[in-house]
Amino acid sequence: MTSSETDSPGETPGDVSSRADVGLLSPVRAGGAAETATSDAAFLRAMLDAEVALVRALAVVGLAPSSAVGDVASAADRIRFDISDLALRARSTGNPVPAVVADLIAQTAQASADHIHQGATSQDIMDTAMMLVAARTLDLVIADLDHVVAGLAAIARAHRDTPMVGRTLTQHAVPITFGLKAAGWRSVALDARDRIAVVCRSLPAQLGGAAGTLAAVRAYAPTAPTDLGARLVTVYSETLGLSTPTLPWHTLRTPIADLGAALAFTAGALGKIAADVLVLSRTEIGEVNEGVGGGSSAMPHKANPVLSTMIVATSRQLPALAAILVAALVAEDERASGPWHAEWQTLREALRLTGGAAHAAAGLVDGLVVHPDRMRSNLDLTHGLILSGHAYVDLATRMPAKAARTIVDDASKLAVSSQISLGEAMRSVEGAPSGSTVTDPAGYLGFAAELTDIALERQAAQ
Amino acid sequence: MTSSETDSPGETPGDVSSRADVGLLSPVRAGGAAETATSDAAFLRAMLDAEVALVRALAVVGLAPSSAVGDVASAADRIRFDISDLALRARSTGNPVPAVVADLIAQTAQASADHIHQGATSQDIMDTAMMLVAARTLDLVIADLDHVVAGLAAIARAHRDTPMVGRTLTQHAVPITFGLKAAGWRSVALDARDRIAVVCRSLPAQLGGAAGTLAAVRAYAPTAPTDLGARLVTVYSETLGLSTPTLPWHTLRTPIADLGAALAFTAGALGKIAADVLVLSRTEIGEVNEGVGGGSSAMPHKANPVLSTMIVATSRQLPALAAILVAALVAEDERASGPWHAEWQTLREALRLTGGAAHAAAGLVDGLVVHPDRMRSNLDLTHGLILSGHAYVDLATRMPAKAARTIVDDASKLAVSSQISLGEAMRSVEGAPSGSTVTDPAGYLGFAAELTDIALERQAAQ
Amino acid sequence: MTSSETDSPGETPGDVSSRADVGLLSPVRAGGAAETATSDAAFLRAMLDAEVALVRALAVVGLAPSSAVGDVASAADRIRFDISDLALRARSTGNPVPAVVADLIAQTAQASADHIHQGATSQDIMDTAMMLVAARTLDLVIADLDHVVAGLAAIARAHRDTPMVGRTLTQHAVPITFGLKAAGWRSVALDARDRIAVVCRSLPAQLGGAAGTLAAVRAYAPTAPTDLGARLVTVYSETLGLSTPTLPWHTLRTPIADLGAALAFTAGALGKIAADVLVLSRTEIGEVNEGVGGGSSAMPHKANPVLSTMIVATSRQLPALAAILVAALVAEDERASGPWHAEWQTLREALRLTGGAAHAAAGLVDGLVVHPDRMRSNLDLTHGLILSGHAYVDLATRMPAKAARTIVDDASKLAVSSQISLGEAMRSVEGAPSGSTVTDPAGYLGFAAELTDIALERQAAQ
Amino acid sequence: MTSSETDSPGETPGDVSSRADVGLLSPVRAGGAAETATSDAAFLRAMLDAEVALVRALAVVGLAPSSAVGDVASAADRIRFDISDLALRARSTGNPVPAVVADLIAQTAQASADHIHQGATSQDIMDTAMMLVAARTLDLVIADLDHVVAGLAAIARAHRDTPMVGRTLTQHAVPITFGLKAAGWRSVALDARDRIAVVCRSLPAQLGGAAGTLAAVRAYAPTAPTDLGARLVTVYSETLGLSTPTLPWHTLRTPIADLGAALAFTAGALGKIAADVLVLSRTEIGEVNEGVGGGSSAMPHKANPVLSTMIVATSRQLPALAAILVAALVAEDERASGPWHAEWQTLREALRLTGGAAHAAAGLVDGLVVHPDRMRSNLDLTHGLILSGHAYVDLATRMPAKAARTIVDDASKLAVSSQISLGEAMRSVEGAPSGSTVTDPAGYLGFAAELTDIALERQAAQ
Repeated sequence: MTSSETDSPGETPGDVSSRADVGLLSPVRAGGAAETATSDAAFLRAMLDAEVALVRALAVVGLAPSSAVGDVASAADRIRFDISDLALRARSTGNPVPAVVADLIAQTAQASADHIHQGATSQDIMDTAMMLVAARTLDLVIADLDHVVAGLAAIARAHRDTPMVGRTLTQHAVPITFGLKAAGWRSVALDARDRIAVVCRSLPAQLGGAAGTLAAVRAYAPTAPTDLGARLVTVYSETLGLSTPTLPWHTLRTPIADLGAALAFTAGALGKIAADVLVLSRTEIGEVNEGVGGGSSAMPHKANPVLSTMIVATSRQLPALAAILVAALVAEDERASGPWHAEWQTLREALRLTGGAAHAAAGLVDGLVVHPDRMRSNLDLTHGLILSGHAYVDLATRMPAKAARTIVDDASKLAVSSQISLGEAMRSVEGAPSGSTVTDPAGYLGFAAELTDIALERQAAQ
Repeated sequence: MTSSETDSPGETPGDVSSRADVGLLSPVRAGGAAETATSDAAFLRAMLDAEVALVRALAVVGLAPSSAVGDVASAADRIRFDISDLALRARSTGNPVPAVVADLIAQTAQASADHIHQGATSQDIMDTAMMLVAARTLDLVIADLDHVVAGLAAIARAHRDTPMVGRTLTQHAVPITFGLKAAGWRSVALDARDRIAVVCRSLPAQLGGAAGTLAAVRAYAPTAPTDLGARLVTVYSETLGLSTPTLPWHTLRTPIADLGAALAFTAGALGKIAADVLVLSRTEIGEVNEGVGGGSSAMPHKANPVLSTMIVATSRQLPALAAILVAALVAEDERASGPWHAEWQTLREALRLTGGAAHAAAGLVDGLVVHPDRMRSNLDLTHGLILSGHAYVDLATRMPAKAARTIVDDASKLAVSSQISLGEAMRSVEGAPSGSTVTDPAGYLGFAAELTDIALERQAAQ
Repeated sequence: MTSSETDSPGETPGDVSSRADVGLLSPVRAGGAAETATSDAAFLRAMLDAEVALVRALAVVGLAPSSAVGDVASAADRIRFDISDLALRARSTGNPVPAVVADLIAQTAQASADHIHQGATSQDIMDTAMMLVAARTLDLVIADLDHVVAGLAAIARAHRDTPMVGRTLTQHAVPITFGLKAAGWRSVALDARDRIAVVCRSLPAQLGGAAGTLAAVRAYAPTAPTDLGARLVTVYSETLGLSTPTLPWHTLRTPIADLGAALAFTAGALGKIAADVLVLSRTEIGEVNEGVGGGSSAMPHKANPVLSTMIVATSRQLPALAAILVAALVAEDERASGPWHAEWQTLREALRLTGGAAHAAAGLVDGLVVHPDRMRSNLDLTHGLILSGHAYVDLATRMPAKAARTIVDDASKLAVSSQISLGEAMRSVEGAPSGSTVTDPAGYLGFAAELTDIALERQAAQ
Repeated sequence: MTSSETDSPGETPGDVSSRADVGLLSPVRAGGAAETATSDAAFLRAMLDAEVALVRALAVVGLAPSSAVGDVASAADRIRFDISDLALRARSTGNPVPAVVADLIAQTAQASADHIHQGATSQDIMDTAMMLVAARTLDLVIADLDHVVAGLAAIARAHRDTPMVGRTLTQHAVPITFGLKAAGWRSVALDARDRIAVVCRSLPAQLGGAAGTLAAVRAYAPTAPTDLGARLVTVYSETLGLSTPTLPWHTLRTPIADLGAALAFTAGALGKIAADVLVLSRTEIGEVNEGVGGGSSAMPHKANPVLSTMIVATSRQLPALAAILVAALVAEDERASGPWHAEWQTLREALRLTGGAAHAAAGLVDGLVVHPDRMRSNLDLTHGLILSGHAYVDLATRMPAKAARTIVDDASKLAVSSQISLGEAMRSVEGAPSGSTVTDPAGYLGFAAELTDIALERQAAQ
């Protein structure tokens, strides 16, 4: 039923808005491009694209008149579908395609309408629509990841030699550079970018008919060459810009599992960056902060790391959503009762959350403020203990390892218990040679700069 | 910004609908009461309820004038909030409360507006709103579960003595009754009902101020008795019909974890029923079917088990959503950066999916068509092998167990290999006594009827 | 096959140890009581307990001679089972019970052996064994949680009035007390304790026979009163110290789902405590530390928060394990093909991880070192901005709220930009009244002490 | 401490076996090669391999004498480590590496011992060991998947033209071939094979020192060329047969997330096959059965689909385990407190379960018995309704689609209500043309054979 005719009992525009979700509970995606790309309207548009592509493919292989293509395409563009009504009608069939098809047929001239959805099953259209929506959203994700990667490269270069504390198990360990940390962030962002790109390139169209044999297509052309089916699928897929599947994949859910894995990876990679920013933003640490902080309703002075928070929130949801999606592989028969249906909202949520997080990450990287002075002063908080490893190697090159270990351990304990610097303590410990010059954190950075350089050479795989 | 003033650049009503989710991908909840109860509008209403209750509680304990209550309440009712705009503004603060508060203050007379949100933090309002929405949705769930439980009791009673095949590991095992199966379904539905009811009764309001000490409230009344804080929280909670918390629970997320567990349990319990219906509905089995089947776009004759399918789809999503929610317990500090934010959409999805599934289950039970004739004829498919256990016991009471086991094993193998009935085979096997009367499935039902009776005595815990 | 007879080709003691898991990858449980309580040996013992209890119950209701009880019990105690061999033999049947039963029968006098496993199915024994193992492990968990709760109560009391920074979204917010924080930790530990106790009390025995009708039991006593089945189940359950089920629950998996939820809750509650300890242990914060830190192989001076780390690691695994367990509710037919089998190792892992984490938490609480001096000095890090909320209320009681907000906002910004204290900044801002006394964090603790007192009154529910 | 010296109080060999897990609860992996490859002993061996490779790499770059390599390697081979004791000692440091290193040093000549673990951190060894264990286990998985793929190809070829029922949403839909179904199974098995192979090739060694800068290595050779670090890592990685990482990945957990995704995919792909076998094995359907069925302790005649059951059980666990592993990406700082530790047992479980399932799948395919006669007879169960789609197309090529639809719908309803065949019903419905030949399921197979042929052309990606 189209919106101009809408008059379903108990349903008014007010009712519609009383059901809608426009992102009030999901600020990470509210108003963003990924949200629009995964909206109900976007899914409807993708279903219509699939139906039009099918008519076009039927025409190419000779199973529909050319005139039908234009008729159906223009109907698909012209009709103002009532999405809310489609959603309600989807309840009786278990999926929205029959209602979409019915409305499309009703508004198309009969001769052309007869070719709408010809030979297809609901899942052909629904799956193809999911792939189209995924492809369109992943393009946005890739663009944002590219932005993140480029921004982090610039940060890593700028701070190639900026020393800071390396922290392990929450404790000061040894010095690192902020450049190395940023290069690491870039590295996982690039990993995410590569994984998304691989999946995006392989998203297949779906066309198999009732049980994946294209039986109805065959029945319409019983004497056609045996490659008719493959040709139809190829034209259909290419028309849509999707890859051509080897087999109908109604219950061979590789693309769904792959999408889940790539999206969860991306959310996790961005979550790593955000988690680090949260630590470094802590009031006591203060080594970085988000450029524009979120205000607090109770504390006027606070600048909260809002972008990082939203990204971390996303990274806590995606593993579970991906678990639902990979579990969809266990889909019995030629169409599954439940596993398939569990994919739709889950995939949409995974796409729009990750899309939102990628965009937030781009903003985070753009605005990140770095404080080398705080990094430097934090290096001194342990009064030299952060260099105990250096002091040990310094001794170990001059005496047996065991003796060196004992001296440094004793000095470290003394430094802690007497609240003196490691340097002072070393001078008090028996057996320690005089004249150690191990006092400069910048002198114990190992290969941080070289590792940063090497890591920055890596480019996106494609 | 309220909707009457809306003029944000780049945002038009068309844009809004291009972002909205009205259930097109989630037929299990589309158009249902649980969807409305968990919509953005419902969350906004709950936030406003919380703000109004806070002013009321402040007035009761003497921290606000009585007149403020009416002023704020009427503003909350009167304002036409632009939810889409609130969602967009939530991005800068990371949650929608500041925008809601700003709009509410802007439309309330100054003297009263000064008391809006007084002493509160955003999380107080957000958490309270989640609890209100949960309480309102769980009431719907409980009503539907009560309906399911009652319907299954009637079915179990009607089929107390209807024999059917018991199936284990996909194979025919021994006879059972459909009454026993339905009583089992009722039992897990009742378990779900009890768990939901326990959680529903304990949902707490949230009020702690910036870091859970009610410091601002105290600052407004530094000389008040020391029980002022507790009194304020009690009045606030009771006004809202929620339970009074012992402590602010900003990072003590027991209610969230409990909700997740109860909802996942409910989806799973309903999923068990639906999974059984799916098996019994199989064309080859045909022992039950949904009253109203879903049509197929490709196969006109098919009547698909749509309700069961939607319920199973739900049961595949909830465990993962509950995993996100229980993980929210690990919330650091006095407000967590990410775990909290990951709760909102997840909890909403868990509520509306489970609410939809409960309603679908009510419909499933109402319409379920049972075919005792098919149940009876399926009992004969193994030509008596389903009674091999009975034959064994029959022999074992007359000879050593080991000998009995050998005879029945031999006869069973013979029956399978020669495609004869177990009865015939028993007559051909050496050592088998003549005259066994073990041929009637209805004679090997054990205590199925008594177990059914006992199970039906159980009532909802409260 | 018993170990004294073991001679399976290709299997030697060396082979066994080459397969074993003794906790090398799971330090949180290695060597602990929960690990022993959930070992293969413990599950075997529980299976034998179930078999013996069944013979005892059969004897009580008159279906087995009294002498069988002692015979079977002594065989169960006497036999040295080869667990590795049982594990291998479990592959052909899909579960270990048939192999256990065969070995038990082989070593028991014939007359008594005939009554072993009489009327039961493998799942009866397996499920009962899971419940016994769960009950025994949960007793350990409860004891450790009681220890945690008591220890935290002492800490909360000792630090009832110790001021520290309250942190929200990683930033300093307003002062709190460490007593309030410890009381919050105790509160979630108590929540966990109550949830575990409820589940532990309700763990049911399992006894239903092949498809849950106790058909074989009935067949052995066709003329017995109709309450024979219920009596048998009751005696069996009571013998084992488990609760008596209303129905066989072969595919009504409430106890499994409940266990998963309670264990995940517990891991999450302990994870909250550990996550806070990790934050407060950070080198830059230093407000608490674990009594005995873990050494580092690379940095001799480091004292790592090992217990907290192991607890947090547990809290990251349990939500997923609980998701598997609650998904087990969707178990088709009278015995499910897969869902049931997925429970065993998952439940064991959930029990031993949570048991290990509870024990680690007891050690964490016992050894926790608190540094009130660091708490005090951290309060000054923002030079008074942590009291901006107090300053605002102080003004707001003397002027319109909006004006007060403006003054404090301006002063806060000035303090940040000029790196002066809030107090100084307030004196420079136009319109600020002179003479504010808002400079003492201890003066802005709200109802922290009262909330702590109230929270400490709460006791375990049972 | 080595086993020959073991005398830890309270620990006896009996105690050890009381803690061990040898697979009693996990028949899918008990006794299999993947279990051995992931045992505690295998992880220990891999840790030792990493330590030896490190000494070798140090020698190659000139940081250790050549003689140290042989000394350390022979000590690693010679020592009989007490794994249980190592597990217990791992508790104090949070990971087992320090204990392993201590034992290794204690049994190596001093001069060589000084170079053990030189420049490394525990995580270097632990992560490298995980990758080695993964690589060794994935080799087994790939071999089993190759076996599955080959077996399914043979089945698909043999049954290229065997008609059977296509089932959608549990109902008979249209005919398919068993060849097409088997080709689909092969397709997802191949997808799994390709994903495992990609991950297996990219598993990196780990070597970064305390915080990922190789600072200690640098300190031992302060004047060496700046590519010393990269050379050391390359030699170390190549020695181990692992790939060389661009950066230390202590908190850049791409390999862990990738392993989780590939393993969950594999379990899901195999779960799809097994789920289909379970359906087709149902007593009422009987179209396939496992070659060797599992016996039942209560029903002597039953042949349970044990392999499929174990595979499905695996497929229900892996999504959750993979969720834990991908969540490990969110690892803060230079070493994370919890996320890292949560990986170990989870990854091991994921590897050994999937390894067991792949091996079970190989057995399932080898033994699968196919019943074309049952497939044929099931095609007739709906008395021709399975061909209603064919009847519709047959009419639609001769009359308007709408009219054709009406006739077939009416006839289908009549066939169901009157329990007559569709053919008969068509003859009774008004407007239906006479002479339809649509009665042969084998005539409505669409492009099933061609699709099968195309799918079988695909080979493993390499």
